Amino acid sequence: MLDDKNPAFTPLSEIGEFGLIERLKNKTKRNLPSTAIGIGDDAAVLNHSDKTQTVVTTDLLVENVHFDFTYTPVKHLGYKCIAVNISDLAAMGATPTSILVSIAASNRVTLEAIEELYSGMQLACEKYNVEIVGGDTSSSLSGMVINITAIGTVEEGKAILRNGGNDTDLIVVSGDLGGAYMGLQVLEREKQVFKENPLVQPDLSEYEYLLQRQLKPEARVDILPMLNDLGVHPTTMIDISDGLSSEILHICKASNVGCRIYEEKIPIDPSVFKVCEEMKINAVTAAMNGGEDYELLMTIPVTDFEKIKGNPHLTVIGHLTGKDLTPYLVTNTGEVLVIKAQGWNTYK
Amino acid sequence: MLDDKNPAFTPLSEIGEFGLIERLKNKTKRNLPSTAIGIGDDAAVLNHSDKTQTVVTTDLLVENVHFDFTYTPVKHLGYKCIAVNISDLAAMGATPTSILVSIAASNRVTLEAIEELYSGMQLACEKYNVEIVGGDTSSSLSGMVINITAIGTVEEGKAILRNGGNDTDLIVVSGDLGGAYMGLQVLEREKQVFKENPLVQPDLSEYEYLLQRQLKPEARVDILPMLNDLGVHPTTMIDISDGLSSEILHICKASNVGCRIYEEKIPIDPSVFKVCEEMKINAVTAAMNGGEDYELLMTIPVTDFEKIKGNPHLTVIGHLTGKDLTPYLVTNTGEVLVIKAQGWNTYK
Repeated sequence: MLDDKNPAFTPLSEIGEFGLIERLKNKTKRNLPSTAIGIGDDAAVLNHSDKTQTVVTTDLLVENVHFDFTYTPVKHLGYKCIAVNISDLAAMGATPTSILVSIAASNRVTLEAIEELYSGMQLACEKYNVEIVGGDTSSSLSGMVINITAIGTVEEGKAILRNGGNDTDLIVVSGDLGGAYMGLQVLEREKQVFKENPLVQPDLSEYEYLLQRQLKPEARVDILPMLNDLGVHPTTMIDISDGLSSEILHICKASNVGCRIYEEKIPIDPSVFKVCEEMKINAVTAAMNGGEDYELLMTIPVTDFEKIKGNPHLTVIGHLTGKDLTPYLVTNTGEVLVIKAQGWNTYK
Repeated sequence: MLDDKNPAFTPLSEIGEFGLIERLKNKTKRNLPSTAIGIGDDAAVLNHSDKTQTVVTTDLLVENVHFDFTYTPVKHLGYKCIAVNISDLAAMGATPTSILVSIAASNRVTLEAIEELYSGMQLACEKYNVEIVGGDTSSSLSGMVINITAIGTVEEGKAILRNGGNDTDLIVVSGDLGGAYMGLQVLEREKQVFKENPLVQPDLSEYEYLLQRQLKPEARVDILPMLNDLGVHPTTMIDISDGLSSEILHICKASNVGCRIYEEKIPIDPSVFKVCEEMKINAVTAAMNGGEDYELLMTIPVTDFEKIKGNPHLTVIGHLTGKDLTPYLVTNTGEVLVIKAQGWNTYK
């Protein structure tokens, strides 16, 4: 996990918007060849070489809707908000190059907190070899708002979309699922304990993997190069931000196919099962509907099965279907359930 | 100005995030050749032709910090937030192609309000020939937050930056200044009147130009093609979002020059003088520090003076200086004042 500091505090009003921009600019400069002009003009200018297309994605994060400072270290938040946008680019088969960061902060937020946020972002920029090339800083009346735009490139026509699935394709997922959601449940439980008794010092060491999945997720930029090496070309790809149910439905809808996912095949870490038992939550439900794992869900031609068989990073969890366009989950007891949209309604 | 409707109301919770995205997607589709893949995948894919660079800018707008729904029609807000980002691209000499829109709205915001916002955005997209290619929708606990990312292209090496100014260059501004700020003052005054007596129906027709400058600014995408036709190549360019003082300081600092701006040369509309007199505000102060005019401030070689002399869209307001790096305003009475940074500190 990332180190946290205990900083001294400077109100943002002391350095003003231009002072803040100056400090952030110096902190984030990386001299990547993709950056022709970075922070400091009306817009950034990017070098994207011939025969590529530009790929862009954006994410808006609102305090107490998407993150909670009672249990989210600000540096982790910075890392995560870059990583999850890189994840969207990875799911397109794109190579990330540049990031724009907009932040609105209320006057209770200090310069040090913003710098800590940026140092988390900076760590992610180094990890994923991207550069912050611009953004906007502004005030808010309550809470922090962060908008990230991530930009990358893809070879012309090589973007991996959601609509390329064929009715015999295998459904494959990277890594394991449900961990990020159960990490959140642990944090929410500790928040309640803390509210009731602020003196209790929780020992969360046994939940380390789950907390890391929730607080410091990584984008699977390693998967596509590995698949290329194996000679496997996914027909669809999407990152798992809202949960497996929601993402497979996107693929089925866009590709006009159905699917069968087998419960017993879904990769779930033993620590997820353990904490699910503790909390009386069904582990498969956590994997299907929990979200925020930022693993890649993809479909590949069935003829490529031998190439990925036994690969420790990839698990075949089912297959697409042609005639019946219903998306099914086949349970361990052989029951066949219809997968429903679980994309959470944030407006409730 | 834009027409406002009196809509029926649907809570966003009724259609959910996916329902909202589906509606917005259909509303915004334009089939521009620059859009390879628009809304609906993990990221958008853009066709940017060879020998161009990608230009990106972003802006975060927070309710009651950057806009106030008591006097901002939601459709105008939609138009404005696109126009001001196009303005940043225009100030780089770039051709805008694509827009990403992130919105967080609280549950008091209705579907109809969001659609009205998007119809204003859509109008701006048509005017500036750009397309909304992606974004994010989310909830907020209080107030609306909008983040716009605008993307465009510029011929390799042809971006107009802030650092190209030479010590004899003329300082030129498009259009006129101070109108947007005085429009805001009129709206703020009417808000106070309304608070005291909600039955008063204000007659704002005499302020129409000022209100239009504030509520529906246009990006000066017409200026660069005109300059190209005249054979004039600006050495620096910036858009006036924070006021003339702040913008000329950016140019002076980046170009390592000083300047002399002549008060009597600053283009100010008669209606600005009129309302400034009414409100006891100095019109030159409104022009220098008011901001939000979204005109272009540029410098051009002194040898190009004849080419723009008498041009109704352009006014020479002063010149850069070499030896003395201080930025000066020369008043009508011949006084020489040092121009100070007035970029408003939003954190106070």
